[in-house]
Amino acid sequence: MTVLTATDRSGTDHAITFRSDIDVTLMDSMATDASVIAAARVSTQGADSAEFWDMDPAESKGLIKFLARNRHGTPFEHNSFVFRVTAPIFVYREWHRHRVGWSYNEESGRYKTLEPAFYLPGTDRKLIEKPGSKPGNYEYVPGTAAQHDWLVQDMMEDCVNLYTRYQDRLWRGYAKEVARMTLPVNIYSSMYATCNARSLMAFLSLRTERDDAVFPSKPMREIAMASEEMERIFAETMPITWAAFEEFGRVGP
Amino acid sequence: MTVLTATDRSGTDHAITFRSDIDVTLMDSMATDASVIAAARVSTQGADSAEFWDMDPAESKGLIKFLARNRHGTPFEHNSFVFRVTAPIFVYREWHRHRVGWSYNEESGRYKTLEPAFYLPGTDRKLIEKPGSKPGNYEYVPGTAAQHDWLVQDMMEDCVNLYTRYQDRLWRGYAKEVARMTLPVNIYSSMYATCNARSLMAFLSLRTERDDAVFPSKPMREIAMASEEMERIFAETMPITWAAFEEFGRVGP
Amino acid sequence: MTVLTATDRSGTDHAITFRSDIDVTLMDSMATDASVIAAARVSTQGADSAEFWDMDPAESKGLIKFLARNRHGTPFEHNSFVFRVTAPIFVYREWHRHRVGWSYNEESGRYKTLEPAFYLPGTDRKLIEKPGSKPGNYEYVPGTAAQHDWLVQDMMEDCVNLYTRYQDRLWRGYAKEVARMTLPVNIYSSMYATCNARSLMAFLSLRTERDDAVFPSKPMREIAMASEEMERIFAETMPITWAAFEEFGRVGP
Amino acid sequence: MTVLTATDRSGTDHAITFRSDIDVTLMDSMATDASVIAAARVSTQGADSAEFWDMDPAESKGLIKFLARNRHGTPFEHNSFVFRVTAPIFVYREWHRHRVGWSYNEESGRYKTLEPAFYLPGTDRKLIEKPGSKPGNYEYVPGTAAQHDWLVQDMMEDCVNLYTRYQDRLWRGYAKEVARMTLPVNIYSSMYATCNARSLMAFLSLRTERDDAVFPSKPMREIAMASEEMERIFAETMPITWAAFEEFGRVGP
Repeated sequence: MTVLTATDRSGTDHAITFRSDIDVTLMDSMATDASVIAAARVSTQGADSAEFWDMDPAESKGLIKFLARNRHGTPFEHNSFVFRVTAPIFVYREWHRHRVGWSYNEESGRYKTLEPAFYLPGTDRKLIEKPGSKPGNYEYVPGTAAQHDWLVQDMMEDCVNLYTRYQDRLWRGYAKEVARMTLPVNIYSSMYATCNARSLMAFLSLRTERDDAVFPSKPMREIAMASEEMERIFAETMPITWAAFEEFGRVGP
Repeated sequence: MTVLTATDRSGTDHAITFRSDIDVTLMDSMATDASVIAAARVSTQGADSAEFWDMDPAESKGLIKFLARNRHGTPFEHNSFVFRVTAPIFVYREWHRHRVGWSYNEESGRYKTLEPAFYLPGTDRKLIEKPGSKPGNYEYVPGTAAQHDWLVQDMMEDCVNLYTRYQDRLWRGYAKEVARMTLPVNIYSSMYATCNARSLMAFLSLRTERDDAVFPSKPMREIAMASEEMERIFAETMPITWAAFEEFGRVGP
Repeated sequence: MTVLTATDRSGTDHAITFRSDIDVTLMDSMATDASVIAAARVSTQGADSAEFWDMDPAESKGLIKFLARNRHGTPFEHNSFVFRVTAPIFVYREWHRHRVGWSYNEESGRYKTLEPAFYLPGTDRKLIEKPGSKPGNYEYVPGTAAQHDWLVQDMMEDCVNLYTRYQDRLWRGYAKEVARMTLPVNIYSSMYATCNARSLMAFLSLRTERDDAVFPSKPMREIAMASEEMERIFAETMPITWAAFEEFGRVGP
Repeated sequence: MTVLTATDRSGTDHAITFRSDIDVTLMDSMATDASVIAAARVSTQGADSAEFWDMDPAESKGLIKFLARNRHGTPFEHNSFVFRVTAPIFVYREWHRHRVGWSYNEESGRYKTLEPAFYLPGTDRKLIEKPGSKPGNYEYVPGTAAQHDWLVQDMMEDCVNLYTRYQDRLWRGYAKEVARMTLPVNIYSSMYATCNARSLMAFLSLRTERDDAVFPSKPMREIAMASEEMERIFAETMPITWAAFEEFGRVGP
């Protein structure tokens, strides 16, 4: 994390922060493999399936595999994960396109003075587009150290410049929603995002990069970083469900 | 609960059960008023709003009222309720029309031999359509004791008859999904239904009968019975949210 | 179609109708392959992609295949089909579980006296469950002509009996929603169902029986009959999209 | 529309365009008041309701009013509007939060070199936040001509600067998705957005500013501009439905 102090045109100093991480924190959850089993068993055992809610799910591992392999999706919906996410705006632009089984509340540039925190690509972020890449299947290669340094310097100049001008506009009385119109898409914002295992698996299948998936996807690196952290939490919380997702090619059931 | 023993054409006895209740049991939940406050505050406080997740929500009662009165719905979505429901099929026919923010898994007449449990109107169930009632605004009046007795007797005959014929067809080798085709819509089935406070309030606004609601509804009595039980659980779990729903006319935010 | 005249206990005659078909009629549509292309091309061509809206989609067949194979689903949503369906209640019980991208309005047993039309399995409907079949993977075999005749006779008795008792209850003043409680799940009802190509393909992938599908499904015959008719209409209206769905294993994109 | 020519660091000229409009164009539609009537009537008339599909809806105006007043929403879903929208990114940030009954495809900054078109507030756009305004209920007042001129000049400098640096990064081989990270949220993008009358009314109730609404909203001006144009098209296409929406306080049914 780099911090630069910058002075706006009104003479006020601002500590401009640069980060390269995406933060995903689990706020709350209600999620067990057992719930998947009980929900699936209601079809064949009716109300008595409730007993599975508190049983060891390891004994019904085969049922969860069956559901995942055959894409019986609904039993994976009776659970919930609430994440707090801190990420640049260009990540939310993709995230919010997930409509089904997702709930969102995000920081508002209309109601709040935005904080001076900006995303910069880390040193391991591939920067260069491979010549001849095609839309839908771009390939990227790492930049040289010099390319990374130049870019980061260039972006930092933009962010410092834009944020101080933003603050100056606020100081002149312009409305927040007006003053922010030229803030860049790499400014950080925060949100709560709530989903269930089914909508999460749909997300993971599109937003992680795995060549061994049945339907491989080429997500943007920054949303993949968020996905990987959610997947880690998912694997810990619902290990049997996650293992089945993994085993059967990461197809959202 | 009345139980009649009936013999099917193959000579097997069945204990036919008659009930007048709708069972709603909370299986699991992740639901606090505090989550509503944190989710709303992310718009003005960003990631720092997380501190509200563990604070006493009573201090922010005014914010929840503001959200309910002005129909800011999304902060009410970061929570979850899983109910197990046992109700006659004609209740599910209405319930499953709620598509958004609801997840379902139900007992299957294709995979399971259905149990001989049937719904009968209780003595307090209004039975008679007021002459001149109009669709969308029917009014019902109670039946006499004689009318209730006659109906219940008549329905019991049907159920005994149909269930023994169903069993006989199974005994003859017909597929479950075929044998059940003439089972009546008052046969009981079970499901898990998962929702959040927002989708639950949308349900309650339509499926409870309250003349003091801003948009009064005339729900079928049997689905209102389920609603009333869910509302009781909701009021216990998220008391501030429920109170705001009640105060501002029971409009789903 | 068989029609039987039956007299209820109040002395009124009713013409009880028996059918074995599922009716699906296209009421309206706004659906072209060109819309898929324009919607996909907006990502790379912006507002100029509008020109594809009126162009011959055959030239962009490859793009539609690419979208279907890689499960890029959203371009398939900018179109609409309105179907009128007439089917027995047990078919709607499955249909209404499709929540996303589907809109429904159905005939009401609370507001309307239901018509005496009942479903009977046709002679080509497999009736018998193969011994040893397992839930999720039942196998059925045809019944003999005698088995079919016996069943149809048995079901007709039930329907005549139940419908005349329903009418008698109405005649005695019982509310429609009460009188209908022992009507069987093979009574016909009508609905309008509106979907788009994406939600339709999700439906078809689950509700048609095709051994060559990537994820084969074992739908109930009666909902498969509806699916087959919707698929026929879909193939006529959006032939390139349908062909890509078929070519890539009938996986809903 | 103002156009400035700017030279990037690689020596290439770019014509930077500044606009103050939001473009909404109807691409296709399948939308009639008659469909609302037929869909509502299926509950009381079954399959025969189809005759209303082609009848003059003016005769059933009262039914549409009844549905709107009592918030019977589903009959308003059997229709479809496809809009092409051209608007700055900060408008999509709000728009895409509408999840239900909306389909989107948008221009991609990953796959496409973004065009140099930027939004500037028009002379009638209120610029200044009234002192003492509170989140959720901000009030804005117009700026003076001098305030408008200063702001527009300030924003234009940002946009010219940022766009030429974006082009320079592309020229140096950086990936589009990397180079665009400091482009501002007032850059224009295009999308197709498909909805139905019900989801459109939900949008209009939140995204138009009408003091006479039952639940008044304070939308951002730029999304209200898009809403007003969609409402004009809606009123022309489904005049009876629109009039009922207007008459009963603009509450989404």
